[in-house]
Amino acid sequence: MAGQAAATTRVPQEERSRVMRGRLLDATVELLVERGYAGTSTTLVSERAGVSRGAQLHHFPTKQDLVVAAVQHVTEARGAELRRAAQALPRGRGRTRKVLRVLGDHFTSPVFTAALELWVAARTDPQLLAEVQRLEREVGRETHRMTVELLGADESVPGVRELVQATLDLVRGLGLADTITDDRRRRTRILDQWAATLDATLTLTPERA
Amino acid sequence: MAGQAAATTRVPQEERSRVMRGRLLDATVELLVERGYAGTSTTLVSERAGVSRGAQLHHFPTKQDLVVAAVQHVTEARGAELRRAAQALPRGRGRTRKVLRVLGDHFTSPVFTAALELWVAARTDPQLLAEVQRLEREVGRETHRMTVELLGADESVPGVRELVQATLDLVRGLGLADTITDDRRRRTRILDQWAATLDATLTLTPERA
Repeated sequence: MAGQAAATTRVPQEERSRVMRGRLLDATVELLVERGYAGTSTTLVSERAGVSRGAQLHHFPTKQDLVVAAVQHVTEARGAELRRAAQALPRGRGRTRKVLRVLGDHFTSPVFTAALELWVAARTDPQLLAEVQRLEREVGRETHRMTVELLGADESVPGVRELVQATLDLVRGLGLADTITDDRRRRTRILDQWAATLDATLTLTPERA
Repeated sequence: MAGQAAATTRVPQEERSRVMRGRLLDATVELLVERGYAGTSTTLVSERAGVSRGAQLHHFPTKQDLVVAAVQHVTEARGAELRRAAQALPRGRGRTRKVLRVLGDHFTSPVFTAALELWVAARTDPQLLAEVQRLEREVGRETHRMTVELLGADESVPGVRELVQATLDLVRGLGLADTITDDRRRRTRILDQWAATLDATLTLTPERA
């Protein structure tokens, strides 16, 4: 009986803890987008999240812990969204164009902006850099894998791997351009043209047919 | 005689002023690269440049004046270098690949890093943003024009303008990737493949033949 009581108490505690963590991470991303890395402080985050300083320090002892976890958290959540959106796209003619537009939207979302703040801050902060490089390797590998799948690209064909990488570097460059100017129309034209070029260049696999 | 004396005095003064300005701008770019936008102060710049605070304030009253002028100055200087390097490339087979490698080097230079710091800072600073948008429009237009010329691309052919833009967004994305990891080998493979794709896609103009 005592064990059962402890178990029912523990579950809501774990749930409360999970919710609190989520609120802290969401508040951090919002602040990175609104005020940039330099303008984001742990005090502002706890205020925004409505979480006590003590509870915040328990979950994330330093600003670095908080910002890295926040970017990782939203990247994973958005990655899952991106996958669902892209998997819902119809096969066949025009698919590449739609896949690229979904990727373009992904790289111009607040998640990209928050990640950009983290990358740029990491450049001049060696401790943060090690964490961001680790995160980038994981995210980069997963995004590449998903893009190969979505495009139905056959990487055993010479040059195809590089074209998939180029596609991701292109959308990263478009994401950066979009941070200081509303670039949607230009981006759509560029991605549509790149889709036509990719379709003409990539070897078709059964999945693309 | 008095007029002549004034003229000979004025010339060295103008020259001294020009040299001092150049030292301030170079120091600003160095500090943006080493310490980022938040870590760059006007005090550090005057110390690094060996220029008195008074003289610095005379030339650039605010941090914003200084950083925008610095990025504009080095962008123009590097743009001229880029043009000379690219114009020295041989015509004919393999030229596109070489042009892209020169562009790739340009977008991974300290000038790109300094500009990146400025872009990201401008995102959350409305006054700086207006200046950076103006600068970006000028630089973007000029870089596009030069790339068209270097690739010998015929923009009257549908889709060619978008592929030139895509090329510049690609190298911007590669530049961003390079700020947190040494990306040279991957970048070279991607650019070489992009060159092959461009060569197969762009309509040849007499200049490319």
